[in-house]
Amino acid sequence: MSALKYVGQRLPKADALDKVTGRAVYINDLARPGMLHGKILYAAHAHALIKSLDVSKARALPGVRAVLTGQDIPEIPLGFMRDNRPLKKGKVRTRRDEIAAVAATSPDIAQEAIELIEVEYEPLPALFSPEEALAEGAPLIHELDAKGRPAKSNKLSLPWKLICGDVEEGRARARHIAQGTYRTTWISHCCLGTSGVIAEFDLNRNLTMHSITQIPYLAQNDYLEALKAMGLPSSQVRVLCQTIGGGFGSKLDTHCYEFIAILLARATGRPVKMQFSREEEFLAQATRQPATMEISQGCDAEGRLTFREVHMLLDNGGYTSWGATTPSVMMVPVSSLYRVPNVRYLAESVYTNNIYAQAMRGYGNPQATFAIESNLDQLALMAGMDPVEFRLINANQPGDQTPQGFKITTCGLSQCIEKVRQGLGWQEHQQAKARGANVGGHKARGQGLASLIHVGGGARVYRSDGHGMIMKLDDFGRLTVFTGAVEIGQGNETILRQVAAEAVGLKLEDVSIVSHDTAICPWDVGTHASRAAFISGNAAIQCAQELRRKIFALAAQQLEVEPEDLDLSQGQLLVRRSGGGEGQRLAVAEADESLPLAKVLRKAHFSSGGRMLMAETFYDPPNEMLDREFKGNLSCSYAFGASGVEVEVDTQTGQVRILKYLAAHDVGRALNPMLLEGQIYGGSLMGVGMALTEEVKLHEGRVVNGNFLDYKMLTCKDAVPITPIIVETDDPAGPYGAKGVGEPGCVPSAPAIANAIFDAVGVRIHDLPITPEKVLRALQQKKDEVCRLAQPPC
Amino acid sequence: MSALKYVGQRLPKADALDKVTGRAVYINDLARPGMLHGKILYAAHAHALIKSLDVSKARALPGVRAVLTGQDIPEIPLGFMRDNRPLKKGKVRTRRDEIAAVAATSPDIAQEAIELIEVEYEPLPALFSPEEALAEGAPLIHELDAKGRPAKSNKLSLPWKLICGDVEEGRARARHIAQGTYRTTWISHCCLGTSGVIAEFDLNRNLTMHSITQIPYLAQNDYLEALKAMGLPSSQVRVLCQTIGGGFGSKLDTHCYEFIAILLARATGRPVKMQFSREEEFLAQATRQPATMEISQGCDAEGRLTFREVHMLLDNGGYTSWGATTPSVMMVPVSSLYRVPNVRYLAESVYTNNIYAQAMRGYGNPQATFAIESNLDQLALMAGMDPVEFRLINANQPGDQTPQGFKITTCGLSQCIEKVRQGLGWQEHQQAKARGANVGGHKARGQGLASLIHVGGGARVYRSDGHGMIMKLDDFGRLTVFTGAVEIGQGNETILRQVAAEAVGLKLEDVSIVSHDTAICPWDVGTHASRAAFISGNAAIQCAQELRRKIFALAAQQLEVEPEDLDLSQGQLLVRRSGGGEGQRLAVAEADESLPLAKVLRKAHFSSGGRMLMAETFYDPPNEMLDREFKGNLSCSYAFGASGVEVEVDTQTGQVRILKYLAAHDVGRALNPMLLEGQIYGGSLMGVGMALTEEVKLHEGRVVNGNFLDYKMLTCKDAVPITPIIVETDDPAGPYGAKGVGEPGCVPSAPAIANAIFDAVGVRIHDLPITPEKVLRALQQKKDEVCRLAQPPC
Repeated sequence: MSALKYVGQRLPKADALDKVTGRAVYINDLARPGMLHGKILYAAHAHALIKSLDVSKARALPGVRAVLTGQDIPEIPLGFMRDNRPLKKGKVRTRRDEIAAVAATSPDIAQEAIELIEVEYEPLPALFSPEEALAEGAPLIHELDAKGRPAKSNKLSLPWKLICGDVEEGRARARHIAQGTYRTTWISHCCLGTSGVIAEFDLNRNLTMHSITQIPYLAQNDYLEALKAMGLPSSQVRVLCQTIGGGFGSKLDTHCYEFIAILLARATGRPVKMQFSREEEFLAQATRQPATMEISQGCDAEGRLTFREVHMLLDNGGYTSWGATTPSVMMVPVSSLYRVPNVRYLAESVYTNNIYAQAMRGYGNPQATFAIESNLDQLALMAGMDPVEFRLINANQPGDQTPQGFKITTCGLSQCIEKVRQGLGWQEHQQAKARGANVGGHKARGQGLASLIHVGGGARVYRSDGHGMIMKLDDFGRLTVFTGAVEIGQGNETILRQVAAEAVGLKLEDVSIVSHDTAICPWDVGTHASRAAFISGNAAIQCAQELRRKIFALAAQQLEVEPEDLDLSQGQLLVRRSGGGEGQRLAVAEADESLPLAKVLRKAHFSSGGRMLMAETFYDPPNEMLDREFKGNLSCSYAFGASGVEVEVDTQTGQVRILKYLAAHDVGRALNPMLLEGQIYGGSLMGVGMALTEEVKLHEGRVVNGNFLDYKMLTCKDAVPITPIIVETDDPAGPYGAKGVGEPGCVPSAPAIANAIFDAVGVRIHDLPITPEKVLRALQQKKDEVCRLAQPPC
Repeated sequence: MSALKYVGQRLPKADALDKVTGRAVYINDLARPGMLHGKILYAAHAHALIKSLDVSKARALPGVRAVLTGQDIPEIPLGFMRDNRPLKKGKVRTRRDEIAAVAATSPDIAQEAIELIEVEYEPLPALFSPEEALAEGAPLIHELDAKGRPAKSNKLSLPWKLICGDVEEGRARARHIAQGTYRTTWISHCCLGTSGVIAEFDLNRNLTMHSITQIPYLAQNDYLEALKAMGLPSSQVRVLCQTIGGGFGSKLDTHCYEFIAILLARATGRPVKMQFSREEEFLAQATRQPATMEISQGCDAEGRLTFREVHMLLDNGGYTSWGATTPSVMMVPVSSLYRVPNVRYLAESVYTNNIYAQAMRGYGNPQATFAIESNLDQLALMAGMDPVEFRLINANQPGDQTPQGFKITTCGLSQCIEKVRQGLGWQEHQQAKARGANVGGHKARGQGLASLIHVGGGARVYRSDGHGMIMKLDDFGRLTVFTGAVEIGQGNETILRQVAAEAVGLKLEDVSIVSHDTAICPWDVGTHASRAAFISGNAAIQCAQELRRKIFALAAQQLEVEPEDLDLSQGQLLVRRSGGGEGQRLAVAEADESLPLAKVLRKAHFSSGGRMLMAETFYDPPNEMLDREFKGNLSCSYAFGASGVEVEVDTQTGQVRILKYLAAHDVGRALNPMLLEGQIYGGSLMGVGMALTEEVKLHEGRVVNGNFLDYKMLTCKDAVPITPIIVETDDPAGPYGAKGVGEPGCVPSAPAIANAIFDAVGVRIHDLPITPEKVLRALQQKKDEVCRLAQPPC
């Protein structure tokens, strides 16, 4: 095999120049001829009946072209449980309920019209936590269940339940058992590009959506369903994705505002743009799913885990998005992070009158891992073991099959833990701590560590995990690659360009990527589950093989050699004339002759019976859909990693400062270390934000900090000194050995930090974010407890 | 074979609604962020030295971002003989010479800047006809020839010469010989969309051209060459065609203004739009090539043609576009219209200081056919034969091979002539005329007829006549077809949709066409030579076969039958379970089972190891490039036709009124009779304009009627009662039997009209257009001649 030319290179993102110079076209920048602007009226109550809704003043406002309410539109059921509608009718269930929408000639006029709409409500008792919603006598938020029958409670009939082995046996066998309850809260994706769409019908009633979705083909189906409901069953839908200003999972579902745009476009016969303000983005996009997690884990005398049991209560908010399926991914660490023979997991989702959640980077994994890894440190402590040693004893190993049925092929978890231990200076710190040298005045230093497992080879969460690809070669040897994958800023197009150039054997500058258009690009299930590089990379290799077969057949005929005696590298055909080819991939040195591919292609093109070369493929990875018991080999490979942090806790203020942050990831192979590190930096920082500062604050269902002043996203001023560590395990299923790495960065941050805080000051914070107030309160409680137990009490 | 579902249907154009409602996006409608506007300064003399060129005032004008002259740009040779440059330097050769260009923030500012440029010329003696340019002692317009050697004369070294058989022998054998000289003039394409382009570099120095070319892939190469000259050898070029407001051949070359846009975009770093005014379009686009044609033809006693000899003198203007190759197509009728054993043809092109010509519908054929068919009527008269009978005796027949080497497969020429004869009421008219009943007062009616031959199965004028196609099927059974063919208003996308739906076996509404983007669509040589429907139709059939093979393989596996027992029609899979399939194409009645294709596709998609279906192909027709003697089978099939007209000539005013116009065309098969008739109407009307009214008038190289008031294009008010007659010959090479038909309509109009005028009033007009003045003058000359010969003279 020739040395790799592009795979492994540190190449900047293809779209970086456009983005840093402001030339990239975001949905904000886009206008269509005759375009109208849409605005939405949201509910003024979290739970109320709509007694009357008067839009007459809004309709009369000059410049207004349409006003729609729930009464004016057909039944278009939305969301995973089909319990949502683009515009609500009769009743509101959250403060983000869309109850009317306006299309006008300018955004200002649309907003004025919104303010002219008169609504009378009859408030209902509202429920702002799962506990309240499950209480005896709580009012029903949805009167009907998913099957249209009268609902019995606010609990959703969602099936997230996993039983592996015998937890009672594991519990009985345990020498030590740690138990705890952990809570995570609403976190915003904080995409710098706010949500927006332009819906446009042509005169044949076909719809084009200028969109920023991460799932163009699934979205296309949702829109087609809506058109059917609107009486347009034979209309076609084309989804064109614009430059996306951040995805992070927020665009893995179709949203009410998109359907409102479609309805307004149909009502007016003109393109309609919806563009969220930042405040709207906080209110009416979506968040990470908050969870209350009761966990217990036990180990035997040697420190080997004997069981793990997790019970989750999830605040589903008022409606059920695809984000409600995150518990299926929470199962991944619950069942398979470390070797644990017996597992029981139950997640219950409950309707409340809060805003609702959506997929977000890690898809539940950061929440679950926060509970598992926080609790694991407690267990190690109980067992009297070093937390790092404890993790190494239990670490997953290559060849393992986990209780849920995951087949671990490559696994660099132990290496990741070792490298983080080294990088932290763990031993030195422990020795210093033993001497009390980690404390100076009111500041104490501590170290903590947490691991992760995530899908790294696609994930069959839909019935297809597939990806189509077309390659078109021109007669100058330039290649165009058509991919259904969506670039959401992670650099997938750059990676794909590298892989395609490598796999076909062309120069990088001769490869172009075409994407973001459902009419042109073959089907892909969407950019999620850290799958884009893995899946599109494998598709590119598969398609390249077909293209190379055609190239070599053509060239062999022209050059009068056997196809086996040919190779192609960086656009040069290598020819072995001496015969005896033992397979492809000649080295340049072995070639008896070398000529530009373009020459062969032009000759083939400009002959009678001329030919030009294209190839197409559909790659569907050999992973499995989970069965009814949620078992099966969900992914073709699994990503592992460990993050280690050193913090300094100020015991006077409760402030936590991160001094070191090491993030070691088993990435299979680094296709582009620069972009890979970018994923690790970004993921880690997102994880730190989740751990320490970020929370969408709700007061009676209303977002009270929906802006970047009050919502504390980390900025470059808060940046943490992150050291990415790349562990390569050369995964046999991955393109050139690579695994997915988009999400893992953020997964272990919170527990690593929580563990480090405990290491520093001996208090464990169970609910995120770990604010100074919570640290101070915990320190005070600990002090009170110590005092209470002291003889004499202090 | 199942009955055809869509082929043969009268379906309106897919883009008709967009165009009639003003929603189609023309280049005029398009703006790009940060776009500048370019304007060009043209020469003030037809032939002069540029003594000085001062752009300082233009550069100083606020809003001006770049001013370029020939001094500021690299050497970018353009045109068929590479004798042209985007901006001229040192010397101007025509009044359309581009000598400076401005990019500014608005078109008005750009125009003001143009007017601030100061130029001093030293006029040179100018040459406004080939005769003047060939005269002894004429100054040289180009000092160097194509090879860079000192030029010896103004004659171009172009090789248009054809010798078939022995013309001297044919001449000797002739009983009658008719001789004459015919002239055609400059005609404008009169595209309603004026020329325009936006050139845009991205930050990686790749170029996107928002263009209206008919040859996106050849244009891409021209632009790449220009970028090389500009020091950007590794830049890529993407050509995106916008809606084209008329092509007719005018966009078969790249033009100076396009390269000026590129140079200005590079100089400013911003997108630059050039958009011609109507006056500019007349001056600086291009025209049909004017020709002076000496012809002689002879026949034997039975009226069989024994020879044809044609000598053409062509005004090449100041530079040589691809339009200079029209003499190669003029050869088609010269050598092959009617059976003529001995042919000699010589075409000489001469530089003048006039504007220059470009390809135009028929590519020289209308000029040559004007001479041949006018002269043929004279020959029939000399031979004392009825002109229709004379043509039938000599008509081409299926199975013929013409002297130039064209293999006539299907040929409906005789049928076309017969149908026109019938439709005109030829016999009745001749009888009436014999009685003098065709004359009433100062008005006389006459009938005339002319035939045509044209390429109808592609034309190998470039080294490839090929066409690539990709088909992508989604799992709802919807098909996207990627074609390199350019829709120039002729309806090709509608036709292709019909053919693809038919050939794959889908519903029409489930087929979409993607075109007009070199990045996405496979290569095609361009929309010319009436080839689009023929070539893209054949490519679609070829690609459909591949796609059907994949569909049947997939379905056979799922349904547990043999692929041979399956058929697909309108999206339904037909299954024969009773076995014994004798080939594909079951009729619905024969099927034992029928199920939606979508069902099979979705099952295949949503299984592990899932698949989605695509297919790609490259179709290159089996036609031949002409050899060095200009012989070979240029096209896979040949189109034939005959037009017949009845005119009324006013002998007091010279006015010619068309009473009947019959256009019979051998089209192989009418894929869509409605669009086919549209081509015949449009072509015929263009031919009538050429015959009677259209002429770009030049005075010393300056266009003096460059607007729609003074240039007499026919409008709907002048519309002629055209009766299209479709003759189907089911061509074996064509898609469903079809031949090309885009150009033929305009070919025989002028001679048919000239012949009808002669029939009416006995005068023959030899030069186009046949204006009332020319008719009156000829009538007066005839009268004078009659008087002169009368005894006694009157």
